[in-house]
Amino acid sequence: MVERLVAYRRHLRRWLADGKPRIYSHELAGLAQVTSAVVRRDVMTIGYTGSPAKGYAAAGLVDRIGRVLDPPQRPGVALVGLGSLGRAVLKHFARLHPELRFVAAFDVSPEKVGRIIDGCRCHGSADLETVLRADPALVGIIAVPGEAAQDVADRLVRAGVRGILNLAPVRLQTPPTVYVEDVDLAVSLEKVVFFARPETERLEALA
Amino acid sequence: MVERLVAYRRHLRRWLADGKPRIYSHELAGLAQVTSAVVRRDVMTIGYTGSPAKGYAAAGLVDRIGRVLDPPQRPGVALVGLGSLGRAVLKHFARLHPELRFVAAFDVSPEKVGRIIDGCRCHGSADLETVLRADPALVGIIAVPGEAAQDVADRLVRAGVRGILNLAPVRLQTPPTVYVEDVDLAVSLEKVVFFARPETERLEALA
Repeated sequence: MVERLVAYRRHLRRWLADGKPRIYSHELAGLAQVTSAVVRRDVMTIGYTGSPAKGYAAAGLVDRIGRVLDPPQRPGVALVGLGSLGRAVLKHFARLHPELRFVAAFDVSPEKVGRIIDGCRCHGSADLETVLRADPALVGIIAVPGEAAQDVADRLVRAGVRGILNLAPVRLQTPPTVYVEDVDLAVSLEKVVFFARPETERLEALA
Repeated sequence: MVERLVAYRRHLRRWLADGKPRIYSHELAGLAQVTSAVVRRDVMTIGYTGSPAKGYAAAGLVDRIGRVLDPPQRPGVALVGLGSLGRAVLKHFARLHPELRFVAAFDVSPEKVGRIIDGCRCHGSADLETVLRADPALVGIIAVPGEAAQDVADRLVRAGVRGILNLAPVRLQTPPTVYVEDVDLAVSLEKVVFFARPETERLEALA
């Protein structure tokens, strides 16, 4: 349901940007590619109401979804690893998600440390504990090579991070109280390559 | 199972790089975080055999997995969108996945068109059909803004692409014969932020 709320909000904001103040459940369902019944149930679950005749007030629904999804304070995010993927992520979120506050970025490369990159100060990775003690982060993004990822995860968890977006191609071992979401571009692409092949060829490979 | 094979191969290559020629099912299971029974069943499914006493020959198993996962020819990949995310993806795969062949990249920005970026020629998006007619791609990667993604997908499909890695924050409509894998960094990060919050706070937000 969290994923659907994220999607609803995104569609509603675009809807509002198009100058349309109200939306019917079937319209939102069409945009989010779920059934109207699912939309109505989700909206009811988060305690918002519309009218069958006039639909939902889009702005009010965006607010209500925000009260569910967004922490009361802007959550602090720490990014570890400013290679090409880390920088793309920083740029992406700095532009499209101003509700997130990038507390600090960390990298081992001397030419990045001390600079401000896409609005975020880059510190040396060795200073992770010190920096996050002064300005704690709720969430960490790991964009370092696979070999370094577990160590970074351990240090982020000790520094109080409660959720990790892991872009490194390894499974992390973390305490059950820490939520980890893995995004592995290489695995995703290898899956696409596999399923893009003609079925006969795939079956022969397995035979 | 495809995801597990991808993971096995990655762990086996690292194992071999550490100078270890043989691996037991429980060792591979530990690395891939599945049970030994799952490893043994997967390996049997792809027609490879080991011995209970000596385990599997790691190099042979890598080869066998490759015969299942990798198409007979190096698959052609077309990348559409060379913003920060598209460029990060290109850099990432060009360096770590030489088995993929980037046929072409496409962008609308005049300062990118005609240049070679990370080893891949960048064409104007208007030339997508012409370029892919001369050098077809099995797979397309979509890294354009959400508004443009569906149109790009339609054109890739007409140009013969059979699988799409979609990095744009929209659901694509494609024929059932085309495999689509969505990677939406924003949704992943919003999920992490949500689940990183203390449980009491999350429940209050829903109440």
